[in-house]
Amino acid sequence: MERKTAVFRKEHFNAAHRLFVPEWTDAQNQAQFGKCSNPHFHGHNYELVVKVVGVPDPLTGYVINLSTLSSIIQHKVLSRFDHKNLNLDTEEFASLNPTAENIVYVIYQILRKELDMSLELSVRLYETERNFVEYPASGA
Amino acid sequence: MERKTAVFRKEHFNAAHRLFVPEWTDAQNQAQFGKCSNPHFHGHNYELVVKVVGVPDPLTGYVINLSTLSSIIQHKVLSRFDHKNLNLDTEEFASLNPTAENIVYVIYQILRKELDMSLELSVRLYETERNFVEYPASGA
Amino acid sequence: MERKTAVFRKEHFNAAHRLFVPEWTDAQNQAQFGKCSNPHFHGHNYELVVKVVGVPDPLTGYVINLSTLSSIIQHKVLSRFDHKNLNLDTEEFASLNPTAENIVYVIYQILRKELDMSLELSVRLYETERNFVEYPASGA
Amino acid sequence: MERKTAVFRKEHFNAAHRLFVPEWTDAQNQAQFGKCSNPHFHGHNYELVVKVVGVPDPLTGYVINLSTLSSIIQHKVLSRFDHKNLNLDTEEFASLNPTAENIVYVIYQILRKELDMSLELSVRLYETERNFVEYPASGA
Amino acid sequence: MERKTAVFRKEHFNAAHRLFVPEWTDAQNQAQFGKCSNPHFHGHNYELVVKVVGVPDPLTGYVINLSTLSSIIQHKVLSRFDHKNLNLDTEEFASLNPTAENIVYVIYQILRKELDMSLELSVRLYETERNFVEYPASGA
Amino acid sequence: MERKTAVFRKEHFNAAHRLFVPEWTDAQNQAQFGKCSNPHFHGHNYELVVKVVGVPDPLTGYVINLSTLSSIIQHKVLSRFDHKNLNLDTEEFASLNPTAENIVYVIYQILRKELDMSLELSVRLYETERNFVEYPASGA
Repeated sequence: MERKTAVFRKEHFNAAHRLFVPEWTDAQNQAQFGKCSNPHFHGHNYELVVKVVGVPDPLTGYVINLSTLSSIIQHKVLSRFDHKNLNLDTEEFASLNPTAENIVYVIYQILRKELDMSLELSVRLYETERNFVEYPASGA
Repeated sequence: MERKTAVFRKEHFNAAHRLFVPEWTDAQNQAQFGKCSNPHFHGHNYELVVKVVGVPDPLTGYVINLSTLSSIIQHKVLSRFDHKNLNLDTEEFASLNPTAENIVYVIYQILRKELDMSLELSVRLYETERNFVEYPASGA
Repeated sequence: MERKTAVFRKEHFNAAHRLFVPEWTDAQNQAQFGKCSNPHFHGHNYELVVKVVGVPDPLTGYVINLSTLSSIIQHKVLSRFDHKNLNLDTEEFASLNPTAENIVYVIYQILRKELDMSLELSVRLYETERNFVEYPASGA
Repeated sequence: MERKTAVFRKEHFNAAHRLFVPEWTDAQNQAQFGKCSNPHFHGHNYELVVKVVGVPDPLTGYVINLSTLSSIIQHKVLSRFDHKNLNLDTEEFASLNPTAENIVYVIYQILRKELDMSLELSVRLYETERNFVEYPASGA
Repeated sequence: MERKTAVFRKEHFNAAHRLFVPEWTDAQNQAQFGKCSNPHFHGHNYELVVKVVGVPDPLTGYVINLSTLSSIIQHKVLSRFDHKNLNLDTEEFASLNPTAENIVYVIYQILRKELDMSLELSVRLYETERNFVEYPASGA
Repeated sequence: MERKTAVFRKEHFNAAHRLFVPEWTDAQNQAQFGKCSNPHFHGHNYELVVKVVGVPDPLTGYVINLSTLSSIIQHKVLSRFDHKNLNLDTEEFASLNPTAENIVYVIYQILRKELDMSLELSVRLYETERNFVEYPASGA
C-alpha cells in the first residue's frame, strides 16, 4: 500500500472586493449580497491553506519541499492578489463575481498547473475566521 | 466533472451539561465519565463548524449564501442550545447522554432537514480546543 | 483601595482602505506606503478589542454589562465602518490617512463620548494578526 | 535599574454558572443578565492567564519556575473550580454573583497568598474569546 | 447505515531536530533543507491532532473515551518525543530523516497498535502554524 | 496632551535550546529545570511581539512604519536566532542560560539600539502558547 501523506502550507493576502451580478439591479444585488455589494468595496485578510497529497520521497522524507511550495504560492498567487482590488486589479475577477467559492477555484486552477500531476491538490480559503471554503470538496 | 465546493460557517454557543448513564451507579458513572459526571453540571463554550458541499450557482458564485446558513443555524440550533442546560432544558438530551458525539449527531439531524437534498452536510463540534468531533466522519 | 478591574469586548469589521498622503506624488506614496497605497484599495478583517476599566458594581458584579458595551460598539463603530471603504464611505477618513494608528484614535474618540467618565477606556485594533495598535498606549 | 520582567502562565477550566441577584425578581434578573440568568445554568471553557512580575534570579534566569506556578494554579484554583458548578459547588460563589469580574478577583486573592510578596501579580480570565477581564487593571 | 463519527484529541510536544541525508554532502543538504539542516539542531512546538473514527457506543455515547485516548498518546508518543532531540534521543529517527512526513508516519504506526482494529485512525502534525502534515491523507 | 499610541509587530523563529547552570550538578539541573535540561536539547516555535510606543507623525499617521520595524527585527534578531541552537550557535547564550526571561532581555537590548530614543519599547516572547514573558514588565 502506498504511503499517501498530505502536506499543508498556509499563506495569507489582503484584498478589497465587491460582490455583485452586473445583470442585476442594485436592489437585487443588495437583496442577495447585502453589505458585501457596497459599490466602493470592502476587504479581507484572506488565509489560504494549500494541501498537497503524495508519497514522501524515501530519501528526503518530503512529499514536496514546503519552501518550494511556499515560493510557488508567493509567485503565482500572492503576487497577483495581495493588496489588490480583486474586481478592478485582476483579470480573473474582471467579469467573475469574487465570492470565496470563485476565488478558491481560480487559485486551485493556478496552482494545479504548477504541480506535478502525481500530486493531488486542494485549497482552503478563509475569508473570515467564520466563513471559509474548500475546493475540491473532500466530501461532506 | 462537477465543480463540487465545500463552504463552512462557524458559530458558537455556551451550555451546561452532565455526562452519565442513568442505569449505572454513581461509582460506575464516575469511573467512566470522571469529573464530567459532576451531578451539578459543568459547561463549555461549544464551537460549531457547519460544512455544506455543493456546486456554486454560476450566476451568484454561491454554494449557499452563508448569511442564510448562519440564520438557519441561529434559529434552529443556537436558539435551542445556547445558554441552556442540555440535560434539563432540552428535549433532545432529556434521556440521551450529551456527549459531543451525541450533540453533533442531533445538530446534524436538525440541519439536514433544513437544507436542500442536493447539498451534502457535515458538522464539527469543538467541546474544548483539545476535544472535538465530526459527523458524519469523512473517513480517517 | 479601590477594586479596579478591566473588562474587554472583542468585535470585528471588514473594510477597504488605501494609505496615501494627498500632498505627495505617487512615487513618494509608493516609497512610504508600498503596496498599501494601491489606488484601487485593498482591505482587512479588522479585530477590535475595547477595554474599559472601573470598579465592579457590588450588587451586579459588573464593571459594565458587556452586552451593553457590545451594543454601543455595534451602533457607533461597526455601523459606520463595517463593509465600508474607509477613504470613500466615511467622513472621518475623507481627509485623514486611514492608518491603524488613526483608525484606533477615531474609534477611541467615538467610544469615549458614549461611556461614563468614571470609566477609563483604551482600544486595540488588529489590522492583521501580525500588525496591531493600541490607544492610548499603556506605556511600553 | 531593576530588570523587572513579567512571566505568564495560561491554564483553563470548564465550569457551569448562573448570573443573578437573589434580592431581585426573576424579571429584574432577566433584564440585567438576559440568558446568562437561566436558572438551570449554562457554562464556559474559562481560559486563565496568570501574570507574575519580578526580577529574574541571576543564576537560574527564572522570575519563577513556570512549572511551580502551574502546579500552584492546579492545586489552588483548578482543583476548586474545574468541572464544577460555581454557584452550587463552591463556597466562594455561594452568595457572590459569579461574573467574570468576581471570578477573577477571587482567583487573584487565592493566588496572592501563594506567592512571595516581592512578586507582583495580575490575573486575566477569558469567559469567551470575545468577553474577558483582568484584575488588577493595568490602567486603560 | 452506521453512524460513523470522528473524534479528535489535540496534544503537543517540544523537540529539537535536524534535517539531513547522511549520504549527501553538506552542500547538498544545505541546498535541499536550507537552515533546517543546521548541524546544531533547531526546534519546534509540535501540535498533534489524533483522529479516531468509529460508531459511538449506544450506552455511553462515546466512540472512545478521550481521556483514555489522551493517556495513550501521553504514554506511547509524548513520553518518547517530548523535550527530546529526535535525531539523538530516539531510536525511530536515529537513521530516518525527521521530516514532519516521517514523524507523523511513525506516530501513526505507534498509535495504530494501541487501538482496536474496528477504529480508523489518522494523525495530523503541525510543525509550525504554517507547515503541517497528515497521515494517512484523506484525499486532497 | 500627547497622542501616545502603541504599535505592535509579531514575528517568529524556531530554535533549539537547553536550560542548565554549568556550576550545578546534573541532579541539581534536573531538579530545577526538569526535562528542559535534556543535554541533547529540545526546541520551540518562538513567537515574538515587539511593541513600540510613540506619537504618530501627523502627515503619515505612522508611529513607525511596521515594514521598517519588521525589517529591523528580521536583520537584527531573526537572522541571529532563527533555526539556531541558542546554546551552541550564539554568542549571547554561550554562557547565559537561555530561559525565556533571558532571551526576551537580550532581544530588547538588541532592538533598543536600533530605535530612536523618543520611542518606548517592550518585547513579549511566547515560548509556548501557555508560557510567555515580557520585558520590561508593564506592571502587574
